Amino acid sequence: MRSTRQELGQRSETVRRANLSAIVRTLHESGPQSRSDLVAHTGLTRSAIRVLVGELTAAGLASEDRAVRRGRPGRPSPEVSLVPDALPAVAFSIGVDSLSAAVIGLGGIVLGVVRIDRPRGHDGVNAIVDDLVGLLDRLPGGRPQSGSVVAVGVAVAGVVRSRDGLVEVAPNLGWSNVPFGALLADRLGWRVAVVVRNEADLGVLAEHRRGAAIGVDDVVYVHGEAGVGSGIIVDGRPLAGAAGYAGEIGHLPFVGQVRCRCGSVGCWETEVGGGALLARAGLPRDAGSEGLERVFAAAEAGDPAALQAIEATGRALGVGLGGLVNTFNPRMVVLGGFFGRLHQQARQVIWEELERHSLPAPRAMVRVVPAALGVDAPLLGAAEVALEPVLADPATRLGSRGSLVQLASA
Amino acid sequence: MRSTRQELGQRSETVRRANLSAIVRTLHESGPQSRSDLVAHTGLTRSAIRVLVGELTAAGLASEDRAVRRGRPGRPSPEVSLVPDALPAVAFSIGVDSLSAAVIGLGGIVLGVVRIDRPRGHDGVNAIVDDLVGLLDRLPGGRPQSGSVVAVGVAVAGVVRSRDGLVEVAPNLGWSNVPFGALLADRLGWRVAVVVRNEADLGVLAEHRRGAAIGVDDVVYVHGEAGVGSGIIVDGRPLAGAAGYAGEIGHLPFVGQVRCRCGSVGCWETEVGGGALLARAGLPRDAGSEGLERVFAAAEAGDPAALQAIEATGRALGVGLGGLVNTFNPRMVVLGGFFGRLHQQARQVIWEELERHSLPAPRAMVRVVPAALGVDAPLLGAAEVALEPVLADPATRLGSRGSLVQLASA
Repeated sequence: MRSTRQELGQRSETVRRANLSAIVRTLHESGPQSRSDLVAHTGLTRSAIRVLVGELTAAGLASEDRAVRRGRPGRPSPEVSLVPDALPAVAFSIGVDSLSAAVIGLGGIVLGVVRIDRPRGHDGVNAIVDDLVGLLDRLPGGRPQSGSVVAVGVAVAGVVRSRDGLVEVAPNLGWSNVPFGALLADRLGWRVAVVVRNEADLGVLAEHRRGAAIGVDDVVYVHGEAGVGSGIIVDGRPLAGAAGYAGEIGHLPFVGQVRCRCGSVGCWETEVGGGALLARAGLPRDAGSEGLERVFAAAEAGDPAALQAIEATGRALGVGLGGLVNTFNPRMVVLGGFFGRLHQQARQVIWEELERHSLPAPRAMVRVVPAALGVDAPLLGAAEVALEPVLADPATRLGSRGSLVQLASA
Repeated sequence: MRSTRQELGQRSETVRRANLSAIVRTLHESGPQSRSDLVAHTGLTRSAIRVLVGELTAAGLASEDRAVRRGRPGRPSPEVSLVPDALPAVAFSIGVDSLSAAVIGLGGIVLGVVRIDRPRGHDGVNAIVDDLVGLLDRLPGGRPQSGSVVAVGVAVAGVVRSRDGLVEVAPNLGWSNVPFGALLADRLGWRVAVVVRNEADLGVLAEHRRGAAIGVDDVVYVHGEAGVGSGIIVDGRPLAGAAGYAGEIGHLPFVGQVRCRCGSVGCWETEVGGGALLARAGLPRDAGSEGLERVFAAAEAGDPAALQAIEATGRALGVGLGGLVNTFNPRMVVLGGFFGRLHQQARQVIWEELERHSLPAPRAMVRVVPAALGVDAPLLGAAEVALEPVLADPATRLGSRGSLVQLASA
C-alpha cells in the first residue's frame, strides 16, 4: 500500500486544486472575509490559507485589503475578497415581456445589466438570439471582449434539457425542441460553455444563495407569470429529475375544467397563473404583466372586482401550496414573480388555504415569504450555474490568466 | 503545510475506515464478488483490497469461497461475501392488517421472518409494542439474543419525524405524537438504535436497492393501502424534506369533495386510496385488504361493477401520476401495495391518463412498473436504514466482535 512518488505528486496537486476551490467557493458564497474566517469556513490550516490566497492574489483573482470592520473589537485584519471582474460570466434572461443581459462576476457581483421590452410576437428563435447578442452593446461597460468572458448562462421560461440546453417546450415563446444553447453559442462565437436552464430553477438557486432562502436547505420556490414555474431545493441541492425537467408543478392536476396550454385539463396553472387572475378581474387572459399591474393597482385603490380576483387567486395558490408542503416538507416557500405581489395583498387567505390543505407536522415548520431578488433572480442564478466550473476548479484559470482580458466596466 | 506524525496516523486510520466501509457497502449492495470486481467497484488497489478483506474475514464479517462462476471463461476466482448473520438487524413492520418481524443480515439476507394478522381495533401503542416484541419468539431461529442484534428498524404507515422516531400522526392506527422509537427501545432493552421510518420511504429504499428500481436514480414509489403513501428517490437519495415528512402525496389537492382523514377535502387519496376503490365497488370504505382482495377476484371473474371500480380508480391514479411525472421527472414510477395489483388489471387506463396529464418531455422517459418486493419491501427497507451506521463504519464493529453473539437461526 505504499505510494510511488508520482502518485503522491498527483495527489498533492489534486488536494491543492480542491483547496483552491474551497477558498474561492467560500468567498463567492459568503463574501469577503479575513484569513481567520477562511480557516473556520474551509477547515484548512492557517498556513495553507496563506499560501493559496497568495496564489489567488498573484493571479489577480483575489485581493487583500486592511478593511475597517465596524463593530468588531480589536485590530482590523485584512479581508480577502474575490476580484469581481477577473472571471466574469454573461447572463441572459428571456422573460415573458422582456429580455435582459448582465455581466456578473465572482461573488455574484453585477458588473452591468441591461433590460429591454420584448416586442409582442417577436418570438422567433433567430430574432431572440439577435436581440440578446445586440443587448451586449448596450451594457454599461460595452460589449465584453471575446476571451474575457468565462461562461454564459441563460434563463428561459420553458422545459429545458440540462445536458445540452435543448428547450423542449416553451409555451410563452411557442418553441418546441429548440437547441437554444447551441444556437446562441454559435452566434456568440466565444468558445465558452453556454448553459441554459429553466428560469424558476435559476430563481431558486439565486434566492438560496443570495436572497430570501440563504442557509435554508429545503425550499420550494414558486414563480407566477403567465404560467407557473417552480424551482425546488432538496437537502441543499436543486431538484433536477432524470433530465432536468423536474419542478413543473404548474401542471399538477387540480380542480377545474379549464384547458391548459400544455394540452391537459385542470392543471394548477389554469387556476393560479397570470391568465387566471386576469380573467377573474375581467381582463383578457393574455394581458401580460401590464395587465397584472393594473389589477394590483386597482386592488390597492379598493376596486371590489380586483380585490375579489386577488382573493380567489390567493386561495387557489394556498390550496396548491398545501399540497406542496405535504409533498416536499420544505422549511420555506418563496413566492416569486407576481406571486410576491399577490402575497402582499392576500397573505391571509393564502395561509388559510395552505393550513386547510396541509398536514400539521410539515405545516408547523414552513414559512411562506416573498422572493427577495425580484426580477433579477433568474439572471443571478444563470451566472451561478455558468460560474460553477470556475468554482469547482479555479486552478485551471490560474494558468490561462494571461489570455483573459479585463472588462472595462468594473 | 507539513503534517505531524500524529496527524498522519489519524489520517491513515480515517482512510482505513473509509476503505473498509467502501468494501462492506459494495458487498452489501451488489452482492458477493471477486477481489478483482471489488477493485473495479471501489477504486482501491488490489493490495488494499487484499489487506482489508483479510481484516474483515479475520473478524468474521466476510468469507472467501472458490465459487464456480457459471458462464464465465477462465479459472474461477474466489468470491468475497459478507457473513449474513454476523451483524444482523431486527426489522418490524406495522401494516394496516398485519404485523411482521424479521432478522435481516448484511447483504439484505432475510434470516427469518414472521407475520401475523393484526386484530382490528388492536391499535393501542402498548398493545402493538407487546405484539411486536412477542413476535420475536416466533422467529424461525427463536428470539435473538441481546447483544447479537446491531440495530432495529421499524416501518410505520404514518408521518414520522426521522430524528427520533416520533410518529406525528398515523391515521390507520389513530396515533398522534407517539414516541414509538423510544417506547420500543425501552421495551426491548437492547441498547441499540431503534430507527422508525415511514413505510413507503422504506419501501422505495428497498425497491431501489434490491427490487424493481435497482440502478435507477430518480424514482417515485407510490404505495396504495387504506391510504396512499409515497417514497421518492431524487438523484439516488431519498427525499426526506426538512424533518422527514416529505412524500405525503396522498394529500395533494385533487378533484372531488370527499373529506379526507387528514381533515382536508378532496385529497388525491380520497379518489385512489383503498377506501375509494371499495366504495366504487359497493363495499364499505373500511373493508380493508380482504375487501380489496374480493374486488380484484370479482374483476378477474368478469364482474362489471368490480371492473368499473378498478377502471375508475386506475384513471384517478393515472391523473395523479401525470402530475408527479411533471413534478419529479422520474425515470421510474413503482406501484406498491394494491396499486401493483391495480396495474395488472388497469395498466392501459392508468397510462392513458398519465399521458393526458403529463408533459411530453418527462413522460417520454418514464416507465411505470409494479413493485418487485411485495409486502416485504418495508421490512427490507427498515433493515437497510438500521444497518446504515454499520455500513458507514464497519471498523467500529471489528473491535467489539467478541461481544457479539451469533444468531442461532442462520
